[in-house]
Amino acid sequence: SRSIRLAVIPGDGIGQEVVAQGLKVLSAALPQDVKLETRSYDLGAQRWHATGDTLPDAELESLKDHDAILLGAIGDPSVPSGVLERGLLLKLRFAFDHYVNLRPSKLFPNTPTPLAGRPDIDFVVVREGTEGPYVGNGGSMRTGTPGEVATEVSLNTAHGVERVVRDAYERADARPRKKLTLVHKNNVLVHAGHLWKNIFDRVGQEYPEVTTDYLHVDAATIFFVTQPERFDVIVTDNLFGDILTDLAAAVTGGIGLAASGNINPSGAFPSMFEPVHGSAPDIAGTGKADPTATVLSVALLLSHLGYGDEAARIETAVASDLAERDAAAPRTTDEIGDALAARVSG
Amino acid sequence: SRSIRLAVIPGDGIGQEVVAQGLKVLSAALPQDVKLETRSYDLGAQRWHATGDTLPDAELESLKDHDAILLGAIGDPSVPSGVLERGLLLKLRFAFDHYVNLRPSKLFPNTPTPLAGRPDIDFVVVREGTEGPYVGNGGSMRTGTPGEVATEVSLNTAHGVERVVRDAYERADARPRKKLTLVHKNNVLVHAGHLWKNIFDRVGQEYPEVTTDYLHVDAATIFFVTQPERFDVIVTDNLFGDILTDLAAAVTGGIGLAASGNINPSGAFPSMFEPVHGSAPDIAGTGKADPTATVLSVALLLSHLGYGDEAARIETAVASDLAERDAAAPRTTDEIGDALAARVSG
Ligand SMILES: CC(C)[C@H](C(=O)O)[C@@H](O)C(=O)O
Ligand SMILES: CC(C)[C@H](C(=O)O)[C@@H](O)C(=O)O
Repeated sequence: SRSIRLAVIPGDGIGQEVVAQGLKVLSAALPQDVKLETRSYDLGAQRWHATGDTLPDAELESLKDHDAILLGAIGDPSVPSGVLERGLLLKLRFAFDHYVNLRPSKLFPNTPTPLAGRPDIDFVVVREGTEGPYVGNGGSMRTGTPGEVATEVSLNTAHGVERVVRDAYERADARPRKKLTLVHKNNVLVHAGHLWKNIFDRVGQEYPEVTTDYLHVDAATIFFVTQPERFDVIVTDNLFGDILTDLAAAVTGGIGLAASGNINPSGAFPSMFEPVHGSAPDIAGTGKADPTATVLSVALLLSHLGYGDEAARIETAVASDLAERDAAAPRTTDEIGDALAARVSG
Repeated sequence: SRSIRLAVIPGDGIGQEVVAQGLKVLSAALPQDVKLETRSYDLGAQRWHATGDTLPDAELESLKDHDAILLGAIGDPSVPSGVLERGLLLKLRFAFDHYVNLRPSKLFPNTPTPLAGRPDIDFVVVREGTEGPYVGNGGSMRTGTPGEVATEVSLNTAHGVERVVRDAYERADARPRKKLTLVHKNNVLVHAGHLWKNIFDRVGQEYPEVTTDYLHVDAATIFFVTQPERFDVIVTDNLFGDILTDLAAAVTGGIGLAASGNINPSGAFPSMFEPVHGSAPDIAGTGKADPTATVLSVALLLSHLGYGDEAARIETAVASDLAERDAAAPRTTDEIGDALAARVSG
């Protein structure tokens, strides 16, 4: 009989609440014969305050021993900026070589958007997850003095760029529109930019059916609000992907709906699925958090593990739930989770 | 009698056309007793194709001998990406120490915006112009091979950050709302980010009337489309400023309206004023280019040179012109320039 060994990192703030709903829907979606084993990890702000640990080696090792990881949200204003991000979230992405940071953006019917005219939005951002300005290669000298110099080094390798570009071509090739856009800033960041562009062009020769184009990141933000329907699949660097996917979430109903997967396609390490939103301490415990982003992240998780039908059922459930939402009658986190679970099992 | 010695770099594509209108409106706005001397520089794609030059030392020297520079647009698809950007535009910004890249964003009445509900948008981005990932400190090894490694180094100094942060506080303090937002990504780019945040907090103590806040760049893009009215003055790094100001332009009527000043507040070198848009080769020569961004850049130029009343008259003329625009009856570049000049002299 089949089984899924799932590591769960609820994390901080609303992380706990949304992960509970994600697990609820996951159980409802899984076929009877699939055994779901979960193990919860106490990582995040509370743990750091109590012990000073962000992600000890023993837990990193133990996390490896799973088929996937579901993460809620990490971060709290009481923790200095960077401590949990670099010491936990990015540490996981780097240690488990999550080079495909997958972030679909779709404007569902009846979902609010700040854009006039409700354009047709349905694209996927393939954000590089293990290189670029995120590598943590920087430092400062004469720190805190008028002579301070601080650096941040963006590191980019042919190996790292090619594998994510190839993944993006595969995804574009599998979609009806077969369009792939590279976003970078190769008129200023000429070294990294040319590496990306050259590999993008070369690998493209293997995908003759995929139409390609290139946009500078600044221009891309314009199209995100004036013509988002032009995008199908976007491949981009770690930092540009971070920025663009928050903007993409904003125009498709907000980060309450934005799902993501930190994927290691080789399967050498478990992939990790998490909503794009943060821990939102201001609404933690109020029942106002929307668990939909986590539930959609669970769909990405299922799809990654080969349960495509179950993933599709969750997406359909979310689409129907959103279609019937009444802004005048908001539901609690738990009620939304229940409604989605009911749709999925029904 | 007073005089302005103005260097003009029309550049490529629509640059020529919009600069002509900018000069027309400048002449109309200037008091009778001010002598305007202009000298035009043939720099850009054509020159590069003809001679291989981007910005020879002799011309860089000669440009210094001016009160200000008006630039149209640089760039053409026939020139490899980066050649003119790094060799001309950024060379000027760096050589003339244009550390304040000033980009106002205002949604004028009757101007189209992709945002539903037409929020009240009126903010200024103070983008750092001489540091960060733009310094050109990068390279590649094993270039073009599967072992290629490419780097881009973001360099940030206390000196460079403090002067632009101080300028932004001054601007915020002079505005009615007195609000300043720092945008960075200090949870990931911890070294540069902490330098920015520490200086931002320290200098803030000298401006007790200015309300401050901090946003990560990804979150800032969300607010640009969901709540742009929350911003008054924004100070940010060179690359984040590049990205955010294109998005700001998009939500306030498009880059056809976005002005900018590359300012050296000390006056040691001439400041340079340019529309945010590019050379738009697809519409060059058709008379479809909107010269408004260049005209508004001329207003920034006048304001910088101490002609505040004349700058205000241009802004009023633009506001009235926009208020009366009829989308069904588009005018040519020249017609818009004439209309603005007439309003300014009237
Ligand atoms: C929390 C932060 C480190 C993270 C990132 O920058 O990648 C977040 O913004 C995201 O997009 O997942
Ligand atoms: C053309 C390019 C080098 C430039 C920049 O990145 O600064 C442009 O995008 C701008 O914003 O002025």
